[in-house]
Amino acid sequence: MSQSINQLEQQFHRIAQLDHASTFLGWDQMVMMPDAGNAPRATAMAELASLRHELLTAPAMSDWLDEAAVELDTGSVDASQANHVAEMRQTWQQAMALPAELVHALVLAGSRCEHGWRTQRANNDWNGFLHNFREVVALSREEAQCRQAQAPARFATPYDAMLDLHCTGDNQALISQVFSELKAALPELFQQVMQKQASVPTKDLGGHYSIKSQQAMSEELMRLLGFDFSSGRLDVSIHPFSTGVKGDQRITTRYRKTDFADALQATAHETGHASYESGLPEETQFYPIGRARNMCIHESQSLMFEKQVFLSRSFSRALIHLLHQHLPATKVFNSDDIWYAQTRVKPSYIRVEADEVTYPLHVMLRYDIESALINGDIEPDVIPDVWEASMQSYLGLSVNGDHAKGCMQDIHWTDGTFGYFPSYTMGAVNAAQLSATMKSAHPNWQKQFASGDIQFLLNWLAQNIWQHGSQYSSQELMKRATGEGSTATHLLAHLKSRYLDEID
Amino acid sequence: MSQSINQLEQQFHRIAQLDHASTFLGWDQMVMMPDAGNAPRATAMAELASLRHELLTAPAMSDWLDEAAVELDTGSVDASQANHVAEMRQTWQQAMALPAELVHALVLAGSRCEHGWRTQRANNDWNGFLHNFREVVALSREEAQCRQAQAPARFATPYDAMLDLHCTGDNQALISQVFSELKAALPELFQQVMQKQASVPTKDLGGHYSIKSQQAMSEELMRLLGFDFSSGRLDVSIHPFSTGVKGDQRITTRYRKTDFADALQATAHETGHASYESGLPEETQFYPIGRARNMCIHESQSLMFEKQVFLSRSFSRALIHLLHQHLPATKVFNSDDIWYAQTRVKPSYIRVEADEVTYPLHVMLRYDIESALINGDIEPDVIPDVWEASMQSYLGLSVNGDHAKGCMQDIHWTDGTFGYFPSYTMGAVNAAQLSATMKSAHPNWQKQFASGDIQFLLNWLAQNIWQHGSQYSSQELMKRATGEGSTATHLLAHLKSRYLDEID
Repeated sequence: MSQSINQLEQQFHRIAQLDHASTFLGWDQMVMMPDAGNAPRATAMAELASLRHELLTAPAMSDWLDEAAVELDTGSVDASQANHVAEMRQTWQQAMALPAELVHALVLAGSRCEHGWRTQRANNDWNGFLHNFREVVALSREEAQCRQAQAPARFATPYDAMLDLHCTGDNQALISQVFSELKAALPELFQQVMQKQASVPTKDLGGHYSIKSQQAMSEELMRLLGFDFSSGRLDVSIHPFSTGVKGDQRITTRYRKTDFADALQATAHETGHASYESGLPEETQFYPIGRARNMCIHESQSLMFEKQVFLSRSFSRALIHLLHQHLPATKVFNSDDIWYAQTRVKPSYIRVEADEVTYPLHVMLRYDIESALINGDIEPDVIPDVWEASMQSYLGLSVNGDHAKGCMQDIHWTDGTFGYFPSYTMGAVNAAQLSATMKSAHPNWQKQFASGDIQFLLNWLAQNIWQHGSQYSSQELMKRATGEGSTATHLLAHLKSRYLDEID
Repeated sequence: MSQSINQLEQQFHRIAQLDHASTFLGWDQMVMMPDAGNAPRATAMAELASLRHELLTAPAMSDWLDEAAVELDTGSVDASQANHVAEMRQTWQQAMALPAELVHALVLAGSRCEHGWRTQRANNDWNGFLHNFREVVALSREEAQCRQAQAPARFATPYDAMLDLHCTGDNQALISQVFSELKAALPELFQQVMQKQASVPTKDLGGHYSIKSQQAMSEELMRLLGFDFSSGRLDVSIHPFSTGVKGDQRITTRYRKTDFADALQATAHETGHASYESGLPEETQFYPIGRARNMCIHESQSLMFEKQVFLSRSFSRALIHLLHQHLPATKVFNSDDIWYAQTRVKPSYIRVEADEVTYPLHVMLRYDIESALINGDIEPDVIPDVWEASMQSYLGLSVNGDHAKGCMQDIHWTDGTFGYFPSYTMGAVNAAQLSATMKSAHPNWQKQFASGDIQFLLNWLAQNIWQHGSQYSSQELMKRATGEGSTATHLLAHLKSRYLDEID
């Protein structure tokens, strides 16, 4: 082992321990902490972030990285270490990209805009929001330009530099290509599905389901999906999320007394995220090379569990017995009743409530706007008009000036999180593509799903995705697993099969 | 503000944020964490401890402390800052006292001995334990000598230097004086109490009490004791404890289905600790001067809540209505039934199960042994014989060679925690003394206790103890609050009043 790589590893090991602290303090904040704990917690989290930044940008880091580069060039360090060093360098570069004043201004403008948004959204106050949001966009453009200037060879557009933070390796050219295929097919497809579904009346799953029983059912589902409760927990929070470290995965869901399906779907989704994190390589867990690849892959794992498994017609046959047992009020339904009710398609305003077929259209609408915003092609004040036009053309809906169900519905942009939205749909694309390959390797998959046995799928994902961490780029990872880079073909085939042919 | 003090404060502010992280990661470990989380958590906690140590022993620290000392000497910094600087210096000195190799050896020997103890205790394997424990004692003596050598003016004995870590400011001379008064009175007193109690049959509080109802009752008790649930939580752990920061106090208790009294008593105790922490001064919360004074004062607050309030005959009148409401099975008891049952006195082997009258004898037995051990007056191999002799002379019991109920019952010594035990009884002494002063200032206290109104007591403690943090030494604090330093008089008077006269 070279001394420079050894020193880099020591530094990243320390950083990982600070991340461990922030991870569980963040979980506690969302799940356990009493109100008055917020002020001291915010102070502590900010200090941990400062300490982390100091360690990551310590003067010696660039020397160690340069030495490691020379050692790789001269062959005194094995070439197998190249990606390890490259991932450390990229993490370091991302931290070095922005001047401290810009980071400070972004945090201030972002928290002001997000804070204002919480009431402005309720009051449909677009102008009030715009006043704060203009500054967020201006600073985010500056951020994107700084990041692009740091690595012009990697980023063809400023927006590419923002994508790099979330969809690392999947650039605007690739995503636009995938999205254009979807855009060409989905508006017609969802109309066909709606026509077909119009003739089938579905049962209303509403009823009264005790929270305690729903919780027991959620835990059963997690066990079925391979979750190990000796290395994780399920709790409740306002918005479901997943976090943790290898050996200690914390996921959350939320329950409504009148509905059981939503909580289960969220549980399946978060179990997917947690399973990916659990399956990451042990030996590199504290280094960038050992991390999850990017959010397009991460979301593919949650959607694999949620859409490809939990929402499949076959798997619902495995679930029905457990449902009848834990929630006796569901005994009036058979598995197809539940499956039909959970797979209804209807265009709607709110992204997070959208069905599987129309969801990508919500994402593409946002992708079009945020990429144009960051690249300087449109200004923030035209967003409502662009939103309205896209809603009409993609989904046939008008928000009629009600921005709470339009361009003010999401939190993402309020603090400058640009480049995240596409990961939702790239995740769906990757999940369908991985699923197609996995299924062709396991022709009996439907029988196994129906018996509640998905071990073969867990093994396949562990081998093809989880164990690789960030060893390969996202597209290389997809190619190795499925023979091709991300393509819309399989998601479209999946949607047609499930919603037109009603096969799984 | 002087620049040196400003820099010291910045450094201690950072340290306090790392302590915040360790505090809540520690709470999570005891209360929430799944088993497999232990390895990554231990790694993270160790790294936070290293980072903390690096910040506390950074080379600039001694310069800043020296500069501040000069500024105080020359009057360029206000004399009111003297204690602030002195507390920072002492914290720094404690961290600087030991060579790194000794710290390392202590951690290793301590965890080996503690780990072995868990099975050796169960197997009554004193010789196996002694093998590991000899090294712990040797290293702890070295630690005590290092600490004494660093500040020979403050520490008359090596054991004084260990007391300084837990009972800061209360030295061996003081504690021995207090304990000798107790030792002279208690063996006779508990015999008298037993004779008196022999004629009064008490009711058995055993029954079936649902955990959920006990939990609701515990929360009611906490509210009555002034606990604010918007700045704290109650949870469950194997051993009750209290931790947190100002604004976020976490306490735990544990429930048994067959008994309600133990959980409530533990809850009252931990609420006392938490109330002290909550009442510490806001403006100095991140500096040593703003911390709780020492464990003798801390334990006085928990015992004030547990023994002086919760276990008082008057307060049990306020509790009985809540008990009847939440635990209907208690309706067969009136408040005196419960009070008599909870105040039975009987010598026993296990310290943590001992009653209020005999408990100090358990502590003094340990104090005698550990002070002699650390000062080099006895060797570890004689502990069982000394223990047996003391048990017979203090409590009239023989352990008959069963060390699990003798010298192997406690965890404290296994990892070298010497100097902690006396704080339990110094806490009881201080609690009774504070209580006596508070009661003479509020002659109506019994009526108020019986009505469940202890606000006057909370105010008194806030004003006389909590708000002062570490501004005064523990004995100065006691003198300001009660007119005298710690003395056994009030604890003895309290025990006679409660157990012989059966007044509160």
